[in-house]
Amino acid sequence: MKHTPKALLDLVEALAKLPGVGPRSAERYAYYLFKNDPRISQNLTKSLDALHKSVKLCPKTHALIDADQEISPLYDHPSRDKTIVAVVAEPFDIIALEKAGVFKGTYHSLGGLLSPLDGIDANTLQIKSLLERISQDQVQEVILATSPSVEGESTAIYIQKQIQDQHPKVQITRLARGLPMGTDLEYADHITLGRAFEGRQTF
Amino acid sequence: MKHTPKALLDLVEALAKLPGVGPRSAERYAYYLFKNDPRISQNLTKSLDALHKSVKLCPKTHALIDADQEISPLYDHPSRDKTIVAVVAEPFDIIALEKAGVFKGTYHSLGGLLSPLDGIDANTLQIKSLLERISQDQVQEVILATSPSVEGESTAIYIQKQIQDQHPKVQITRLARGLPMGTDLEYADHITLGRAFEGRQTF
Repeated sequence: MKHTPKALLDLVEALAKLPGVGPRSAERYAYYLFKNDPRISQNLTKSLDALHKSVKLCPKTHALIDADQEISPLYDHPSRDKTIVAVVAEPFDIIALEKAGVFKGTYHSLGGLLSPLDGIDANTLQIKSLLERISQDQVQEVILATSPSVEGESTAIYIQKQIQDQHPKVQITRLARGLPMGTDLEYADHITLGRAFEGRQTF
Repeated sequence: MKHTPKALLDLVEALAKLPGVGPRSAERYAYYLFKNDPRISQNLTKSLDALHKSVKLCPKTHALIDADQEISPLYDHPSRDKTIVAVVAEPFDIIALEKAGVFKGTYHSLGGLLSPLDGIDANTLQIKSLLERISQDQVQEVILATSPSVEGESTAIYIQKQIQDQHPKVQITRLARGLPMGTDLEYADHITLGRAFEGRQTF
């Protein structure tokens, strides 16, 4: 006996394609969209339609930009220092770092992290274009701002080697490791504590 | 400096309206939809468009049905026993119970659970229509199949009182409480263990 409307099953299936969304969450989202004001679904439809039309990747930094922009304003703006490049995994990392508001250099999104099991190798990532930027913009410092995860660390080490080989004079740094603000020492894991000791600073 | 495309911010905002989706998850979904085959977004758009056109609530059981159906097949089909009614909170609970495949009665979705702080009182829920069904279909047994949560229990108690007042001969039951399959006794909470003791059965 067919007892669930097809339109609903289709929506559940489409929502379950999102990363980390299982069938139960997808059902909850679908039912929420059904039960509430149709304008919520319409807004979603409208912005989904606009997404592929109005957003593209910056050819230089691989940040997300408006389709009518030529290059990211975070690269092009005269206030940005092109000789310092922060290398991040994904475009949304740029948005997070910009919110901190402390960095006045430029960004370079790799479009992912090295993960051989998922078929992501050095050629899939924007590493060649990073090495080109170092020559073109006379980059002095590259900040490897990947996450402190296994993939983040191994990607950083790989890029560090590439830069040292081809541009031995460029300074390579990475974001400080240590205790995050508001944390309780007792609950910090031992690797974080180890890094916090190693990187201790004069008070 | 405006550095995030508006279409993307709009999509993040629309996705963050879904229940339990925070801004970080919404960003992840949006970037996933941007990075992957546009057909994934198109499928989502298509099923969102179909949702409000092709799905409605059954006027009798308040289950979700196709817009061209008059009444839920789970009520209408001759194999279903209309004298036993399982009362659930939401239409998706019906789908979950049907998957178990053990119940041959009919369902009644309340459209939520009593939650005075969220403005959901007895009049918001399909309680009056349940009492009417009891008369119309000569219902013999009502199974209160709400979740074993605070809201689920208080809703069940409220409905039990209403039925006892108006239809004192109707048998009122609820789903068994006890240890779920595959659980480890050691990790079960004390309320579940208490209920499992109370409801112990001859082996």
